[in-house]
Amino acid sequence: MRGIYFDGKEAAYREDLPMPVPESGESLVRILMAAVCNTDKEILKGYRPDFQGIMGHEFVGVVESSPDPKLAGKRVVGELNASCGHCIYCRTGRPTHCSSRRVLGMHQKDGCFGEYMTIDTKLLHVVSDGLATKAAIYTEPLAAAFEIMTQVTLTPEKNVAILGDGRLSYCVAQAMNAVGKEVVVIGKHPEKLKLFEPFAQVSTNWEKEGYEIVVEATGSPSGIRQALEMVRKKGTIVLKSTYAGETTLPMSLIAVNEISIVGSRCGPFAPALEALASGKAVFPDITLFELAQYKEAFAYEGFKAGFLITKPLTRQNERKDDK
Amino acid sequence: MRGIYFDGKEAAYREDLPMPVPESGESLVRILMAAVCNTDKEILKGYRPDFQGIMGHEFVGVVESSPDPKLAGKRVVGELNASCGHCIYCRTGRPTHCSSRRVLGMHQKDGCFGEYMTIDTKLLHVVSDGLATKAAIYTEPLAAAFEIMTQVTLTPEKNVAILGDGRLSYCVAQAMNAVGKEVVVIGKHPEKLKLFEPFAQVSTNWEKEGYEIVVEATGSPSGIRQALEMVRKKGTIVLKSTYAGETTLPMSLIAVNEISIVGSRCGPFAPALEALASGKAVFPDITLFELAQYKEAFAYEGFKAGFLITKPLTRQNERKDDK
Repeated sequence: MRGIYFDGKEAAYREDLPMPVPESGESLVRILMAAVCNTDKEILKGYRPDFQGIMGHEFVGVVESSPDPKLAGKRVVGELNASCGHCIYCRTGRPTHCSSRRVLGMHQKDGCFGEYMTIDTKLLHVVSDGLATKAAIYTEPLAAAFEIMTQVTLTPEKNVAILGDGRLSYCVAQAMNAVGKEVVVIGKHPEKLKLFEPFAQVSTNWEKEGYEIVVEATGSPSGIRQALEMVRKKGTIVLKSTYAGETTLPMSLIAVNEISIVGSRCGPFAPALEALASGKAVFPDITLFELAQYKEAFAYEGFKAGFLITKPLTRQNERKDDK
Repeated sequence: MRGIYFDGKEAAYREDLPMPVPESGESLVRILMAAVCNTDKEILKGYRPDFQGIMGHEFVGVVESSPDPKLAGKRVVGELNASCGHCIYCRTGRPTHCSSRRVLGMHQKDGCFGEYMTIDTKLLHVVSDGLATKAAIYTEPLAAAFEIMTQVTLTPEKNVAILGDGRLSYCVAQAMNAVGKEVVVIGKHPEKLKLFEPFAQVSTNWEKEGYEIVVEATGSPSGIRQALEMVRKKGTIVLKSTYAGETTLPMSLIAVNEISIVGSRCGPFAPALEALASGKAVFPDITLFELAQYKEAFAYEGFKAGFLITKPLTRQNERKDDK
């Protein structure tokens, strides 16, 4: 099988990978399209030193075999975190935080940068017929943005700033737009901010009176300090950025100004799929590469890079118009 | 007037301080008793470099004159933060975060380590006849502990750990006890933990499965790192410690584990006064010094030091049993 394998130090394109075999409860998925996430690039920099295996966690595929007969032949997207079902986090409604979870392309589980992948069947979500593969590929990062709505109450009087003008920020802005919440996107790059203009207010500066909610989506260690300057007293910073290394902060300021910092990671797939299917969330076209071109894909500086891995057949629920 | 004056660098006992004159809306309060807070010691270390004036913000006094005739002669405690009533924080129910607030003994306002003090009348709370001055002196720090209940929902299934075994921690543990929430107090000093044993579980180690809520009340920069190790994923750290300087933290861990950090400062006086009056919150006796002995008071290593400043008269609402 063809795929991109990370050996703990670097990535390589290989054609000799073994065909994955589903464990109990798993489905076998043929990958149509997979996307490169910033986390994949962080893995190359050493973010997950324990991981060895096929990279990637954002995908659209077709179910080849499954314990759930309704899924056979369906186009699907899938969640990252395979949970044990028994630990304190699984028992208390927090399966994405399972103590012994395996994470696609990141931790003890091969990912989607290959022709086939196995995945816990309960992590799969069917992509509706009307939703193109190149749009559905954004489900996972958009779901992570919808996590914010499960953590913070967005009321009309609370003004919201999104800090950062990259992909992470775009996902958050699209999710906010989909739920009808006006936001201002604050970034350093006027050319990147242009992408947000059709659906959000944009600025290179922040309002002096600050914001009740600041979503830190810069992907950079310096973002949290800037967020602390922007957030109102008794306000909330939603922390979306992940990166290797530590950050120095004036913690007393957080206590004195009674600021809340809310870490935010993976989110619910259902509202993301719905926002994409209804057209409430819209993304730029992904730029597709062959698996063998993985170096170009990882180095791509545009909005989003991905891989076209296997071709759609004219089966039920696959779309011929996705090339 | 006698008092302890901070000149921006160090504290001094003085007998030549001018008698304070109430501004519009202010009351004149004769200070019976004042207590030393850790923040006062931090001011001596440079925590508030801009402050010059009479130190102190924890007090019980008697109203000598007031625009509110009902307050005259009453024994009172008072809140720290004088608010402007016009800024965005005052207009949105956050007067303790007023943009131009003046803070007793800390910022642009003389405090209570003197014979008399002026204070915005709306910050005063009457001490009920049944509540001894030496108990009422704990109102302000206990109110700050009750702030947590306005920020975090304490449900029966959420286990709570309080990190630290000093006064700050004791106030939080008493407030939790007063609302009927069981907690474990985790500290390094078995002799200090003894003080908590009558009303809380104590330990020098934490449970491996962690806690849903960790109240960081160590007063030390290292506390937050320890709290991050103790808190469950998707759990909450309430940050109570304030200190000069910055702290280095693995912020990505906060995002990945979806931890919330909630800064917590001054709180509501009413539940604190009620808990003290009903005996639901109980504190060790304060150790009292003369104002001239301020160096001994600031260096005191026991539970709580304070000053007996003026003597209670046998007026209405003053208690003869408070020496």
